[in-house]
Amino acid sequence: MPRYALLIEYNGAPFSGWQRQKQHPSVQQAVEEALRKLEPDCPGIGAAGRTDAGVHASGQVAHCDMTKEWDPFRLSEALNHHLKPAPVAILHAARVADDWHARFSAHERRYMFRLISRRAPLVHEAGKAWHINHPLDRDRMQAGADRLIGLHDFTTFRSTMCQADSPVKTLDEFRIEAHAIPYGTEYRFYLRARSFLHNQVRSFVGTLERVGAGSWTPQDVTTALEACDRAACGPVCPPQGLYLMGVGYADDPFASSATPT
Amino acid sequence: MPRYALLIEYNGAPFSGWQRQKQHPSVQQAVEEALRKLEPDCPGIGAAGRTDAGVHASGQVAHCDMTKEWDPFRLSEALNHHLKPAPVAILHAARVADDWHARFSAHERRYMFRLISRRAPLVHEAGKAWHINHPLDRDRMQAGADRLIGLHDFTTFRSTMCQADSPVKTLDEFRIEAHAIPYGTEYRFYLRARSFLHNQVRSFVGTLERVGAGSWTPQDVTTALEACDRAACGPVCPPQGLYLMGVGYADDPFASSATPT
Repeated sequence: MPRYALLIEYNGAPFSGWQRQKQHPSVQQAVEEALRKLEPDCPGIGAAGRTDAGVHASGQVAHCDMTKEWDPFRLSEALNHHLKPAPVAILHAARVADDWHARFSAHERRYMFRLISRRAPLVHEAGKAWHINHPLDRDRMQAGADRLIGLHDFTTFRSTMCQADSPVKTLDEFRIEAHAIPYGTEYRFYLRARSFLHNQVRSFVGTLERVGAGSWTPQDVTTALEACDRAACGPVCPPQGLYLMGVGYADDPFASSATPT
Repeated sequence: MPRYALLIEYNGAPFSGWQRQKQHPSVQQAVEEALRKLEPDCPGIGAAGRTDAGVHASGQVAHCDMTKEWDPFRLSEALNHHLKPAPVAILHAARVADDWHARFSAHERRYMFRLISRRAPLVHEAGKAWHINHPLDRDRMQAGADRLIGLHDFTTFRSTMCQADSPVKTLDEFRIEAHAIPYGTEYRFYLRARSFLHNQVRSFVGTLERVGAGSWTPQDVTTALEACDRAACGPVCPPQGLYLMGVGYADDPFASSATPT
């Protein structure tokens, strides 16, 4: 069966997350139902990152096995047709080797978190960013984030529900940008690692928000990290600011014919 | 009665437009109802631009007359509290002179239109931009836009419902930016004038899209303009890409205490 990689964008708001669940709508189910409009016996699909309820994606990757040979462009167009009106779009499809795997072939995940600080409620960005109404100090947050980069036991920053074998991971990048917006500031947190633990990014951002607000010091982040204790974590922030931006592969299936920025 | 200027952001999707109507929800009604939670006898308000159904604002300006003296910051906070959950926010409030008028004191309106060209449907930008799925040529569109700048009779580019006394207006700026996005391009049209006619921006953008797609030439824009005939206009584009970005005043009531970008 020919295998295809799919580059997927979605708004996480109406979904219980990526992964199929019996009682609640999931992104996986939406894509699988569109695939089965094309080939009724299409098997289930797997994705690089199992995003939580409410988390968005601009660059999720999944693979699917089809019975017949599809022109990749026509496959993406047909899927987008059947996905309507769900807020899910196939940005790109590519033919891959039969042993290529969206999850196991991936060597890098990139996340972005949007946090908007302003007095007024969000309007155009409602549901697309975490809104707080007090000022933050970017440099303090970055000083806290710097203490998380590298190889660590991240027990403090993973959900007690996390199913990963080990809490020891390497965080390769954690960069925070501050952008002035009218009457406020938007903070963008950029994270990159081979893989992430369950709720890791939201645990990081919720903790660093406390650092930016002044109630934690950057040193408190190190203390929390070294505690290796979930109870030492700051508040876990809400999901609507989180975006799975991209997945890295040694041989990028989408590299040939597009220019994502 | 002390008068206040309000800087207002809104998502136009759920509204029939700015202006109050008997049967349909309007932004004006939402703001007036919030004001009447503060002062039950508060008179109706007027705004600088009467945006159409589905059109957004990041910088609409209105004024209101209150019975008691309000600290402007507390007024904006109280209004935002009562506006929830409508997608309308007061970004700023300022005390103004009793004869200051949101509409008649304004000497400039600034609009922005977002047009996204990509194959896949919009997800994060759904409802916030006009989506088309064919490529456009920015330089051709700019060449067409250049022909609209200056003092002209814009009869071709105004709705037959337009109530303005004269179709003769001066367009001070019409600039088109192209930004690469993953698997597509976002075009941003920036327009600035003392005032605009009904449907003028959407008539311009819909016509220039035809130029960008290659079915009109830039010269055809001049021909349409000179016809002074509504039937010579290109297709009027949909409202969800249009934003009232700001209003200019000789003495900007919001200048003192914020830094809009």
